[in-house]
Amino acid sequence: MFNSIALVGGTHGNETSGIQLIRNWQQFGLPSRFNELNISLNIANEAALNANVRFVEEDLNRQFTFDRLASNNLAKEAVLAKTLNEKFGPKGNSNTDFVIDIHNTTSEMGATLIILEADEFHIQLARFVKQQMPEANILVEDEKPYLEHGYLCTTGKRGVMIEVGGQPQGVLREDVYLLTQTMAEAILDFCVAYNNQEIKTGALPACEAFRLGENVGFPLNRDGARTAMIHHSLQDNDFKPLLPGSPMFRTFDGKDIPWDGEKETYPHFINEAAYFKLDVAFATSERITL
Amino acid sequence: MFNSIALVGGTHGNETSGIQLIRNWQQFGLPSRFNELNISLNIANEAALNANVRFVEEDLNRQFTFDRLASNNLAKEAVLAKTLNEKFGPKGNSNTDFVIDIHNTTSEMGATLIILEADEFHIQLARFVKQQMPEANILVEDEKPYLEHGYLCTTGKRGVMIEVGGQPQGVLREDVYLLTQTMAEAILDFCVAYNNQEIKTGALPACEAFRLGENVGFPLNRDGARTAMIHHSLQDNDFKPLLPGSPMFRTFDGKDIPWDGEKETYPHFINEAAYFKLDVAFATSERITL
Repeated sequence: MFNSIALVGGTHGNETSGIQLIRNWQQFGLPSRFNELNISLNIANEAALNANVRFVEEDLNRQFTFDRLASNNLAKEAVLAKTLNEKFGPKGNSNTDFVIDIHNTTSEMGATLIILEADEFHIQLARFVKQQMPEANILVEDEKPYLEHGYLCTTGKRGVMIEVGGQPQGVLREDVYLLTQTMAEAILDFCVAYNNQEIKTGALPACEAFRLGENVGFPLNRDGARTAMIHHSLQDNDFKPLLPGSPMFRTFDGKDIPWDGEKETYPHFINEAAYFKLDVAFATSERITL
Repeated sequence: MFNSIALVGGTHGNETSGIQLIRNWQQFGLPSRFNELNISLNIANEAALNANVRFVEEDLNRQFTFDRLASNNLAKEAVLAKTLNEKFGPKGNSNTDFVIDIHNTTSEMGATLIILEADEFHIQLARFVKQQMPEANILVEDEKPYLEHGYLCTTGKRGVMIEVGGQPQGVLREDVYLLTQTMAEAILDFCVAYNNQEIKTGALPACEAFRLGENVGFPLNRDGARTAMIHHSLQDNDFKPLLPGSPMFRTFDGKDIPWDGEKETYPHFINEAAYFKLDVAFATSERITL
């Protein structure tokens, strides 16, 4: 039973679609079919939003581990994280039943629901969203236990992320905005159905999902400078199969570097701007059935 | 006759395609057919590049008016502009025959050559580039005299800009990179032909171009917040005709706002991220023949 749900935008200050959705629902109200839910609408990092940057000092969406929440880090986002943890959490003993944190990406990931556990609850949620929104992608990041993630949404008893793209930082695209709204409403529709005990085990059809693998870095020279870019045949093909031997990079002197995995992988976060400084080219995943 | 040509990338520190093209030509050399030209390869704003931002304190590409170059402004980019003006200029009495400044945009402007004068020289240049690269767009910003612009390229006796999109800030796309390279080489091919007196008046066919009109702002409420986004039918349609009565914005309460001009216009810089703080939605232009 969901007694309290927190919808959050602006965890990253230049991800406009979630911010605008929160503001519009604050101004115009949520669809009336959600009246029975207890929903709070939140902007997480106003300072980053005003500066039109992802974060002012440190990435807010990496601050919510127990270690970091207990540290004496005085970075703006570390301090903010403690405040937000009191508001939504406290993590591990939370007053909020469900935190839904809304993001966007420069990668062509479409509307992606990120879940951090593949338990019965999240399997039903994924199936429900996929049934209501067949174009949705389901990404499973369960490589470690839920509470070990540093994401803001883990302040809730349960937490998920909405990740929609492609959209440049600081830009609001109508198509991305509408996908974001549709996915947020699908999740809230699930909450209503869940509360009304309309979600029955085995009633919803199994669905496709992608389980996070690892990050693949750009090739670098000894000075740390990139020597290649994402190959045009990989660019914009998030969640499409990348086959062994298929090109993933093109070097600046014109050579192709192929994917050297033993089997196909499903890349995502391809060429995401926020990973520029980390030199992350994309993340791999395995196609699974939930 | 061109005795000295300056190719510049990184005037905006998060516009990666020009930066990478300059670095690659520094490392691998320019194509040998340009050996007869005296070309310098330059990164304009290393500090902005290292911070992965458009600029650190002020937009460098607005600093090159005579007034600003003579001012006592101590902003990082204002100081840098004076240094660059000594290097490429001095403006109005320049040692550099031609400054080619390379940019990219989040708008779907394809490969656009921006010229600041529609005189015989630039008409021939535009026609040559368009013949060599039919997919190129020619944008004419001659609403004021060449030397009154604040652009870095106006430090040269002649100056143009290359503007390619769509590409998010801080991201390098292979397609955008290749369009940038192709257009830079087309301009340098023109320089070779011009020096060899192979450019004859009337020999190149007339070409389509777009003359800059004015900026159109997002609708704002009394608090200065946007009340609408770019309409999906306008998004990504840079340099396509926008007809009177066609929707240009969709308000957040679901209404369409049409273009209310008396005739069609050719929008560009549609939803450009760098104009976020200025609330500029797009620029208009008129279709002309050069």
